[in-house]
This record gives sequence, structure tokens and C-alpha cells, in this order.
Amino acid sequence: MSGSPGPIDAAAVGAVIARVRDWAPLVHCITNTVAQNFTANVLTALGAVPSMTIHADEAGALVESADALLVNLGTLDPDRRLGIEVAVAAAQEHGKAWVLDPVKVNRVATRRAFALKLLDARPAIVRGNTAEMTALFPHLGSDGMVVAVTGARDSLSDGTRTILVDNGDPLLARMIATGCALSALIATCRAVETDSLLAATAATVAWSVAAERAAEGGPGPGTFAVRLIDEIGEIDSDIIERYARISRG
Amino acid sequence: MSGSPGPIDAAAVGAVIARVRDWAPLVHCITNTVAQNFTANVLTALGAVPSMTIHADEAGALVESADALLVNLGTLDPDRRLGIEVAVAAAQEHGKAWVLDPVKVNRVATRRAFALKLLDARPAIVRGNTAEMTALFPHLGSDGMVVAVTGARDSLSDGTRTILVDNGDPLLARMIATGCALSALIATCRAVETDSLLAATAATVAWSVAAERAAEGGPGPGTFAVRLIDEIGEIDSDIIERYARISRG
Amino acid sequence: MSGSPGPIDAAAVGAVIARVRDWAPLVHCITNTVAQNFTANVLTALGAVPSMTIHADEAGALVESADALLVNLGTLDPDRRLGIEVAVAAAQEHGKAWVLDPVKVNRVATRRAFALKLLDARPAIVRGNTAEMTALFPHLGSDGMVVAVTGARDSLSDGTRTILVDNGDPLLARMIATGCALSALIATCRAVETDSLLAATAATVAWSVAAERAAEGGPGPGTFAVRLIDEIGEIDSDIIERYARISRG
Repeated sequence: MSGSPGPIDAAAVGAVIARVRDWAPLVHCITNTVAQNFTANVLTALGAVPSMTIHADEAGALVESADALLVNLGTLDPDRRLGIEVAVAAAQEHGKAWVLDPVKVNRVATRRAFALKLLDARPAIVRGNTAEMTALFPHLGSDGMVVAVTGARDSLSDGTRTILVDNGDPLLARMIATGCALSALIATCRAVETDSLLAATAATVAWSVAAERAAEGGPGPGTFAVRLIDEIGEIDSDIIERYARISRG
Repeated sequence: MSGSPGPIDAAAVGAVIARVRDWAPLVHCITNTVAQNFTANVLTALGAVPSMTIHADEAGALVESADALLVNLGTLDPDRRLGIEVAVAAAQEHGKAWVLDPVKVNRVATRRAFALKLLDARPAIVRGNTAEMTALFPHLGSDGMVVAVTGARDSLSDGTRTILVDNGDPLLARMIATGCALSALIATCRAVETDSLLAATAATVAWSVAAERAAEGGPGPGTFAVRLIDEIGEIDSDIIERYARISRG
Repeated sequence: MSGSPGPIDAAAVGAVIARVRDWAPLVHCITNTVAQNFTANVLTALGAVPSMTIHADEAGALVESADALLVNLGTLDPDRRLGIEVAVAAAQEHGKAWVLDPVKVNRVATRRAFALKLLDARPAIVRGNTAEMTALFPHLGSDGMVVAVTGARDSLSDGTRTILVDNGDPLLARMIATGCALSALIATCRAVETDSLLAATAATVAWSVAAERAAEGGPGPGTFAVRLIDEIGEIDSDIIERYARISRG
């Protein structure tokens, strides 16, 4: 793991992505049924090793042997809730960083209440769209927790430093589960980089640059989804150096 | 919403599809685990906004804020059953139209019994293949409920008017979940068109025309699935006007 | 079904694959949520008819009318466990062969214990990677149970005969659920061929040859996944004759 925070630029982002390929981290993902397959394929394409069980009986053991944890609140049901509680407790006990994706907390009140409870267990990073993050804002962002609001322009902050990312393509909004997959990539980068803001930025830049390249030539949304995985399979420091549009906020 | 039934032809179908893109309806889908990702991508490609939670605690809230509901009986389990009951009750309470896809009721007796119970809650439209619909026929089709039997030739009726659709391609039978996705498209069209027969016809024509175009050049079933989503992303009134083969039955 | 064991070579493998296309067997798959869609598409592309319900209330009826059963231990939860027990009991009662895929038994102790219990119900074939199979080895392989260890070189044995398969491509490890889909293909071939070693070899060769052809030109992992389904849609005796690298161990 890297030491105290250095600059967050294309070179630092490229180094994090290279480390994912070298280390092949184990990332446990509790995510929704719609996003599971796509998420697992994205992580595998980058060289990480995902595990996807949601059940309480198994999640503890898998988190203990994993390098990071993703918790995504989509298609939330009692089994998933219990699995999340067990997984987060295991992450705390074994000192594993975890990432929260508060899917649709703006549309389901019980989900928002559950998300607020989870914030007490200190996720390293919380990522959502503007509507989701707005529903949680008063409760976010103390003690270095990284807040990542993604959209046409991505805005990430740890309360001290703020980073803006201007990569991406509108096709990301024409297929499902792209935000969910990005959150899993953030957990993957956090597995190899202790500076949470750099980890979140690295994943966001890699994902958005891959999307730009996948969108070249104006494919339909089906072809775009396939090429997006191809580009995640391909991305490296050189590509990031050429495409990244990162600035201080 | 449109007024009393007008003609059901290519122009009317094209107008429904255009309205989906303009209105971006929220469509809640309770569907099987095999079809969830593909279904959500198909709806997103057409410009609708799917939500996919099956659980009883969340389905009610999401149906209340949705514009239509799909109920698909695949991979039925007790959680799904309960979620369906809550969702259908919410649809009735809040006056939202819903669509029933009675997957494999011809092969599982308990599923058929559940489907018959659901028919009492008056789906606007029921869509299945010949074997599935045959298992329900004595109980279908009163009070304007639209019955859509899809296959090589699609046959749709509200008891008064009957429509035949002769678009499509045999590749639709060489991949999974195409019927499930069509049912979700029917719910999507019903969200923007109160004439259930026109809504069901619009979705069926759009899906079948997209399949014909995706099949051009004779791709394998993997490539066909990707192109099908591309074509749903592309389809509009002009394409429908050129390809639609709709007749009165 | 074929009679007593004959030679296991490219011609025999090609005949099994041809029989799958002719007979269109019903294959019930209890598999993990990550692999369900891909698995169902692979089987459909080869001409089989998959059913995918995991729930105990339905699995019995579907296994009774199926030609073979797959049991995959990924994303194992109490519902899946119960569904597996009911499905395996139905397979035993109705004389249907079943295949076990002991996903990650090397990483989750409770899963391994469950797998050991299932071995008492005599799967025809057990398929896993080296780490998974090593965790079960002392308990495998009596009474003609076929053991298939797949990886760069695939090794299959019924205790008397051993077969090595040297087809495949490293891209298989850069996407998720390829092992899971192979196990489902093994169940599919076992549905039309009673010699379990030939059935397991046929599926392994078909899958690995399809992977070699899908990998031609060096696609990214997203495009590779799509082409893999295309190649399964295409594969036949001629292709197998040209590509198969089968030897006696």
C-alpha cells in the first residue's frame, strides 16, 4: 500500500490501475441481482477476483479473505440486509476497507434509513448519483470519508481535497448497472491503494476513459456494453495518460 | 394518454414508441433472475427507467411511483410471490396498469394456480407463448383484458379486435429471456398508452422489427442478443413504418 | 442412449453434440445468480432447453420432467440449499443423472461440508478447478463417478479411463462464469449420453474448441464472451473433428 497522500493526477491513477493487474485483489461484492454478472465481468476484465455471495452464512468468511468489500443497496431484501450487516461487521473486525453504493435511497425510505445506519460503520467511500447523494448529504463526509458524486462531471472529495473528472460518455446512461459497476471498481482500487480519494479517482477515471473509448464510432447501447468490458480489459497507464481529464475542484 | 381506441397500424405503433422516448416512463418489473439484466437493458435502451426490486418491503413504494408494472412468474419463490402480491395490490390501489407474463405455467402446477389467482386482480394484458396461454385460456379475456400469444406469428386480442403481427426472426428462440423482455416492453408501452391492445401491439411490433434488423447477415445468437439491444436503442417511427407487418385477425 | 462404453475420440464427441441439437434435452440448472443468464444462453445456443428455478416448491416438478440436472454451489443460501436437496432427491427418485459443480468449496468451509453431503447422493460427474477438486479429492471417484478437473489442460477420469483435453484459451479466465457454464454443458451432454466420461469429455471439448475459435484475432473479454455464444451456436461434428485435441491419460 502507498504511504501518505501524494498528488492525484493521471500518473498516480495509472499506477493504481497497474497495481490492480499485478496484485489481482480479491473483492467481495454484495450487489443487486441486476448488476451481479456485469460487475463480476468488469472486475475480472481488470484482473481482480470477485466473489459475489450475499448470504450471511458465507459473506463473513469471504470478506475475511478478501482485500476490500462493496456494499450496493439495489434489490434490497431481508437476506441481503443480513448479509450486508455480517459483511460490514467482518470488514470492521478484520480492518478491510468497504465502499457503499446507496442505490435509489431517494426513492425508497426504508432503504435510506438502512443506508444511514450503515454510515455509522464508516465506509471508506460512498458513491452515488446526485439524487442519491443529496438524500444522504447531511450525514456524509466527516473524518476523511470520501464522497463521490458521479454524473456528466464526476466530483469526489475527502473533505479537504476535491477532484473533478470530466471523462465519460452519455451512452453510460443508456445501459443498466454502470454506476453499480463503477462502485465495484472503486472497491477494487481501494484494495490496492489506502488513499481513498486516489482510489476512488482512479476507478472513476478508468471507467470514464474506457467509456469514451467504447463510445468511439457511436455504437448502440448493446455494442457499447460489450466494448466497455473490452476497454476495461485493455486500459493501462498509457491510455490513462492520454485521455484523463482530472482537475482540482 | 390517448382517448378512445383509434386504428392500430404502423403510424399508431410508431407514435407509442416515440412517446416512450419522450416521457421516459418508470416501469417496475418483478421478473425472474435470469431475465433481470437483459430486461433492464432493453427498457433503458428504449428510454424507459426500470426498477427491478422484488421484495415486498420495497415493491409497494416503487409501484406507487411507477407508471406501470410487469409481473413475470419465472424463478418463482416465496419472496417473489409475496412481492408480487404487494406490488399488484399497490397497482390496484394507485390505478396503475399491470402486465402478467405466466412463464411456464404449463409445466409447474403451483405456478398455474398462482397465475389464476392473479387474474382476479385484472392485469391489463397477459402475454405468453402458446403452451403457457393454452394452460390459462378458459380464464382469460373477459372485460377487455388483452391476450397476447406470441410466437412465429403473434396474435393479440381484447375480445373485440384481433391483431396479427408477422415480424420477427427465428433467432429470438435461440437466446433466453426474449419473451420476458417483450412482456416488459409491453408494460412500458402501456405506461404511455391507455388502449391496452395498441400498447401490446406497439411493443410486439417494435421488438419483432428490432429482431429482424438484428438478424440481418445471419449472426450467431450471442451477437444477435447484442444487436437486438442496439436496434431497440435505434428504433423509431420511420423504421416501424418501413418494416411493420400488422393485420386484422 | 448409447450402450456400453466405446472409444472417446473426436467422432464420438461430435456425435454427442449432434444428438443435443437433435433431441433438445430439458436441463434443469440450479446455479448461482451471477451465472444464470449466461448459462441459460449457452445451453439455448446449443439447442437445449434450460429451466433455472432454484426454489424447493418448483424444483422437484421441473427435475421430474427434465433429462438431467446441474447443481452449482455458487452464491449458496438457505433457499438454494433446500432447492438443491429437493432437486437431488427428485433426480434420484426418477433416475435422472446429475452433475455437481463445487464452486469455491476451497474458500468456504460450510460449502465444502454441504458438498461432501451431496456426494452421498452420487452425482454422475463432478467438475471443478484444481483448488476446488483438491478440497474434495479424498471423497471422489468411486463406483464410476466421473471427476473432471478443468484448467489449461483438462483432465477427466472415471477411475478406469482417463482423458486429457488440450483445447481452450486463456481468455476463458478473463470472464466470469465460464466454469459454471461448462458444468451446465456437461449436464446437457449427459442428458443424451449415458457414458458419463464421454458426456463430460464432449462438453469440455465443445466448450474449449468454441473458446479457441472465439479467441481468434485476440478480442477483448467482452467481445470474446459474445463470440463464445456464437461459436456454441455454430459448433458441430466437422468443427470438432478439425480442432479437438483429445488424448488418453
